[in-house]
Amino acid sequence: MDRGVISLITDFGTRDGYVGAMKGVILKINPQVRLVDITHEVSPQDIFEAGFILKNSYRYFPDGSIHLVVVDPGVGSKRRAILVEAGDHFFICPDNGVFTFIYELERIKKIVELTNKKYFLPHISNTFHGRDIFAPAAAYLSKGIPLEDLGEICNDVVRFDIPEPETERGIIKGVILHVDRFGNLISNIPEVLFRELVGKGMHEISIGGEVLGDIKGSYSEVKEEQALALFGSSGYLEISVRGQDAREKLKLNKGSEVKVVYE
Amino acid sequence: MDRGVISLITDFGTRDGYVGAMKGVILKINPQVRLVDITHEVSPQDIFEAGFILKNSYRYFPDGSIHLVVVDPGVGSKRRAILVEAGDHFFICPDNGVFTFIYELERIKKIVELTNKKYFLPHISNTFHGRDIFAPAAAYLSKGIPLEDLGEICNDVVRFDIPEPETERGIIKGVILHVDRFGNLISNIPEVLFRELVGKGMHEISIGGEVLGDIKGSYSEVKEEQALALFGSSGYLEISVRGQDAREKLKLNKGSEVKVVYE
Amino acid sequence: MDRGVISLITDFGTRDGYVGAMKGVILKINPQVRLVDITHEVSPQDIFEAGFILKNSYRYFPDGSIHLVVVDPGVGSKRRAILVEAGDHFFICPDNGVFTFIYELERIKKIVELTNKKYFLPHISNTFHGRDIFAPAAAYLSKGIPLEDLGEICNDVVRFDIPEPETERGIIKGVILHVDRFGNLISNIPEVLFRELVGKGMHEISIGGEVLGDIKGSYSEVKEEQALALFGSSGYLEISVRGQDAREKLKLNKGSEVKVVYE
Repeated sequence: MDRGVISLITDFGTRDGYVGAMKGVILKINPQVRLVDITHEVSPQDIFEAGFILKNSYRYFPDGSIHLVVVDPGVGSKRRAILVEAGDHFFICPDNGVFTFIYELERIKKIVELTNKKYFLPHISNTFHGRDIFAPAAAYLSKGIPLEDLGEICNDVVRFDIPEPETERGIIKGVILHVDRFGNLISNIPEVLFRELVGKGMHEISIGGEVLGDIKGSYSEVKEEQALALFGSSGYLEISVRGQDAREKLKLNKGSEVKVVYE
Repeated sequence: MDRGVISLITDFGTRDGYVGAMKGVILKINPQVRLVDITHEVSPQDIFEAGFILKNSYRYFPDGSIHLVVVDPGVGSKRRAILVEAGDHFFICPDNGVFTFIYELERIKKIVELTNKKYFLPHISNTFHGRDIFAPAAAYLSKGIPLEDLGEICNDVVRFDIPEPETERGIIKGVILHVDRFGNLISNIPEVLFRELVGKGMHEISIGGEVLGDIKGSYSEVKEEQALALFGSSGYLEISVRGQDAREKLKLNKGSEVKVVYE
Repeated sequence: MDRGVISLITDFGTRDGYVGAMKGVILKINPQVRLVDITHEVSPQDIFEAGFILKNSYRYFPDGSIHLVVVDPGVGSKRRAILVEAGDHFFICPDNGVFTFIYELERIKKIVELTNKKYFLPHISNTFHGRDIFAPAAAYLSKGIPLEDLGEICNDVVRFDIPEPETERGIIKGVILHVDRFGNLISNIPEVLFRELVGKGMHEISIGGEVLGDIKGSYSEVKEEQALALFGSSGYLEISVRGQDAREKLKLNKGSEVKVVYE
């Protein structure tokens, strides 16, 4: 399996050169590897957001890709650094739950704690393991180093709670998990669940007191500035306002409750 | 003609992983292609702005480059997805006018509507054709697939109106089309038109009631915090304030009128 | 020495396509070179900030890397365009002092003023030498062109003043040089100086009237929302607030004085 691509997700922003240093480290070890930024604009230390963004993008990458996710509030503490082989991809991160979505979606094949200092930078800072530990690990892995060489096999990983939608007779209750750049409100209600329970039957979506009618197929089915619910590109029910920012327009945000009532 | 470079312009921002997913799709199809971000910070759904940025950058890329522009307010509606060969470059976008500047500047050699589902992702979402249709088209094109294989030849395209400068005896009236990161106000008055009409004769530039004197050759010809007019890097008359943000300092913006009076 | 990587630092932002045009220019000349963004978010025209970010990242790149730094308030004036070979890296910039940190850290091997128009773009704008002069120079250099071909050897360069920490008996007085994305306040007091003067002795850090106690080893040694001093990833004393933005929380900024008192 080719390991020629490393994707990056961090909360480092793009102002300070932190990501540049990580990329320098990687190219020094493997000048051939392809680097792809997923995002560096994760809200500072927001592990859940990083995990959510990873979930929505990793599977579009080639098999064998290495996904490097560094959102690391515990840097310098005892939290472990891990490498996970799951499905056809590799994932490297501080072991703080950021891969929880991956553990739900993919078969875990191997977990390695990154302990082999031979594959660290010579000097390890207290505040930037992204550069000193995670970037070199990804680079060596991309060169084909066996996973076991990078540290010790382990069996358990930290997970966070993913809020699941609640279902009762005729109702699905979900919650907004993420708000994207356009202000679209992305819920935790999967299209698959909706199809299973509601099918093609009558239904009505509501959020924050606003009743949106039934699920639409695309933005163009409503007028400009009108709110709608549809299944977004990540496969979840989303609330949008055509041509506008739904978060601002509806004054809603992460954590807002969304409800599907059906017959 | 080598098709080894894909450039990207979108309004997706860099927070959510949408661009990362597009790049993953592309690298899965063609691991060798070079990806270059032009910008992902187009104002949401601002087709004109995307077209303007494309116009100012595409011609610096190697011949055979593929420019992927996804600003797509009509996603999910009947708007077409197109591929245009014009001059020595390829352009892929929703057919919403975003290539209007290109149609003015380059000879159109071929227009193809992207209809061949063999070159789409297997599942097409209603809200993210950038990932599901445009990215794979660009990737297959970069691998050398003939244009005709991607869909059907067509002859017409959507165009938007580009505001042209008005000229009457002794006056050129233009309008600000774009404001850049530094707050420079970029007009629609081309240097070529100015040279033709005004030549080396006496002239005076004014904007928003402010008289700026004649065209300067560089910022260093005026004092700090002083406003000036000069021909910017895109070949158009620009209004700047040395060392400051002209939009803020002069309280002007897109749409402001700029005037050249000459003898 | 392989010259296969070009890193970029500019204040151009990522909205306007300026950086995209530069990358197009480079790939047209050398389609094989690897491009790495360090940052394009330098505060407009802030030469010191650009130099500081470069200092913290360049040495992680492979030997032979070319670092292109375009923060250029004097564009269009008589300021020179230079190429510096220092240590195992190459540096290209307007000669405005942005490499001052590099001159302190590395042995200068060669300085070339970029004067050979053969290696410029055919048309040189007055406002965008990043695209017209610096990008082509970097690209030709990456192809292996001898340095001397790009212009004329020169001996002097512009330097700015780097504020040095002041030391007197029992006190080190420093100043905040940079505030990063997380709000960490990075001072000019190097770990090396601290180790030499203070060693493992008693000491106390204070900033803006706030007494922080002794140097900590990592964020996890204090409680959430508590301020601390530690040696950051750049090797300098930093002031942070665990889980928060120290700039906002402590109401401090660039230029604030920080003091180490020791026995």
